[in-house]
Amino acid sequence: MNKHGGYHGLGQVIDYSVNINPIGLSDRIKDVLIASINDATRYPDIAGERARQTVAKSHNIDPHHVIMGNGASELIYLFARAIKPKKVLIIQPTFNEYERAFSLVGSEIVNHTLEARDNFKLHLEAFGATLAEHQPDVIVLCNPCNPSGQYIPYDQLEDFLGLISNYESYLFIDESFIEFTGHTSIIHHTHIDRVFSLRSMTKYYAVPGLRIGYGVGSEHIVQRLEVYKEPWTMNNLALSAVPAMIHNCIFHEQVEVWLREERQPMYKALEQIEHLHVHRSYTNFFLCKLHHVSGHELNKRLEPLGAHVRVCDDFTGLDESYIRIALRGHEENVKLIDLLVRTLAVK
Amino acid sequence: MNKHGGYHGLGQVIDYSVNINPIGLSDRIKDVLIASINDATRYPDIAGERARQTVAKSHNIDPHHVIMGNGASELIYLFARAIKPKKVLIIQPTFNEYERAFSLVGSEIVNHTLEARDNFKLHLEAFGATLAEHQPDVIVLCNPCNPSGQYIPYDQLEDFLGLISNYESYLFIDESFIEFTGHTSIIHHTHIDRVFSLRSMTKYYAVPGLRIGYGVGSEHIVQRLEVYKEPWTMNNLALSAVPAMIHNCIFHEQVEVWLREERQPMYKALEQIEHLHVHRSYTNFFLCKLHHVSGHELNKRLEPLGAHVRVCDDFTGLDESYIRIALRGHEENVKLIDLLVRTLAVK
Repeated sequence: MNKHGGYHGLGQVIDYSVNINPIGLSDRIKDVLIASINDATRYPDIAGERARQTVAKSHNIDPHHVIMGNGASELIYLFARAIKPKKVLIIQPTFNEYERAFSLVGSEIVNHTLEARDNFKLHLEAFGATLAEHQPDVIVLCNPCNPSGQYIPYDQLEDFLGLISNYESYLFIDESFIEFTGHTSIIHHTHIDRVFSLRSMTKYYAVPGLRIGYGVGSEHIVQRLEVYKEPWTMNNLALSAVPAMIHNCIFHEQVEVWLREERQPMYKALEQIEHLHVHRSYTNFFLCKLHHVSGHELNKRLEPLGAHVRVCDDFTGLDESYIRIALRGHEENVKLIDLLVRTLAVK
Repeated sequence: MNKHGGYHGLGQVIDYSVNINPIGLSDRIKDVLIASINDATRYPDIAGERARQTVAKSHNIDPHHVIMGNGASELIYLFARAIKPKKVLIIQPTFNEYERAFSLVGSEIVNHTLEARDNFKLHLEAFGATLAEHQPDVIVLCNPCNPSGQYIPYDQLEDFLGLISNYESYLFIDESFIEFTGHTSIIHHTHIDRVFSLRSMTKYYAVPGLRIGYGVGSEHIVQRLEVYKEPWTMNNLALSAVPAMIHNCIFHEQVEVWLREERQPMYKALEQIEHLHVHRSYTNFFLCKLHHVSGHELNKRLEPLGAHVRVCDDFTGLDESYIRIALRGHEENVKLIDLLVRTLAVK
């Protein structure tokens, strides 16, 4: 299996490597989960039908355009199996499960790697040349992008969609972090038959342990995925919690306040740190380039002081001089800044 | 997706179609689940490592022989994808997900169908002829068998294993109901490199909503499955409950008492019912043949009276005159017998 974030060592270490909403599980969701304990003795809906209805209603779309997943990860693998593309073009650097999923079904993988020095901007001309050269069956774009934190809003994405409409390519667009941008999904702007949007509930709702995600696409794509979908993939307690999570207005407000109060100051503070370059972020994590030490060396210094960051050496186009830092609560953000200042002062 | 048991209608209907242990969730497991609520905010082990250790220890086997699954169903599909057999021989009638899983990876499916009039007994000579004719890459045997309730104990299975050892076939043996037989798994008797035993926690521990299963096989098979295994497929609350479930001695005793007190009397009572033939069962459900009405007609009569049984028309080798009845608690068993007597008296 691929490498991923997450601190697996001992001691009281704050894990800045996992980019999960730090507001966590509200008491209301906990209550719903506890009240649903007896659902453990009942089979879940075979394909999560009730949750699908809830999700569709929340986006004001037809349920036939929605498919539920055991986390977004089920749907990455399911999409790969159902579409079985000969050639996949992945816009890099990005989450490493796309490559694994498509490789397992025998797809040839080609990368279009964006440049750090250009702040990971997607240039249409260069991308058009890659498209023309490879004519991929599937294009994979993570937007906002994990790990770069960059985001292409819909008005800028239109030209990109126009460009790819000249090809027979599917667009697999991972919008797992979109709630943190304050923007809405591509699904509200376009109904291109070959676009599939992947959504995770893990990151925004802070429930990586529950495993809930969903995908939105044309009926044609959803039906094709359903042919390959395995039965009962979602836990029944997790399914029970979906409506309460989606309709939790207080939680949505808390997240908004947290982002407003923490993101920009954290960026400004990271900008001030010597020997580190931070990329501007539109989501809940920051990609940083270290100038004098590797991310591994930094973690060796941080961990005894109680912090751990994500070293990005397994992302295509990055190396061990890149780290990804999750935005956390105020005190933890302040603590990390302090630790970075202290640990990076030493060469 | 395939058809499965489960009553989806309205009203207070006892569902005899789902063959789940009626003893249900103990307070202890509920407490563990409630105490694990905060695990929802943490990623599960990527492949359920701690649960794997627990399962391996409980069977006194090396953890490298064990792979955890999001229910047994994940492992049926994973095995199919990892082994990608050209030809699969399924011993029928049986659970319909095997056929779907192998068909999705392009396997040719051939059936060896056992006869109801012979109480679904596996005759080695006839089976040997099927083997010689088809030379399958994978043989699928459900033991004890869903839906027939028949079980081949290990001493009788030895000749079968000897026979298939002449071929290069994998044996995929689904032992999801084995705890109800009082016998131990094939894994304790044999270490044939090409045997993979599938185990479900759903049926015996009555947790279909949690989605936990596992498989036991040679390191060679487990490693091959791990190449294809998707990340984070198991819910973190479910994983937290595994040790408490396995080590719950009181529960194991309750199940034993229940089976001792209910199974044989239920069989005897079913035997007395006119217009119905019951097959002897080694597990927690009974396959019955109706003589004058279809299972659908029977359900039409039963449901207004508060009961629903599994019509077996989607099982290869059976038809709508077959029903499967789950053994439940004493009062519910008595109630069903009474209802069957009343509803089957009318032609």
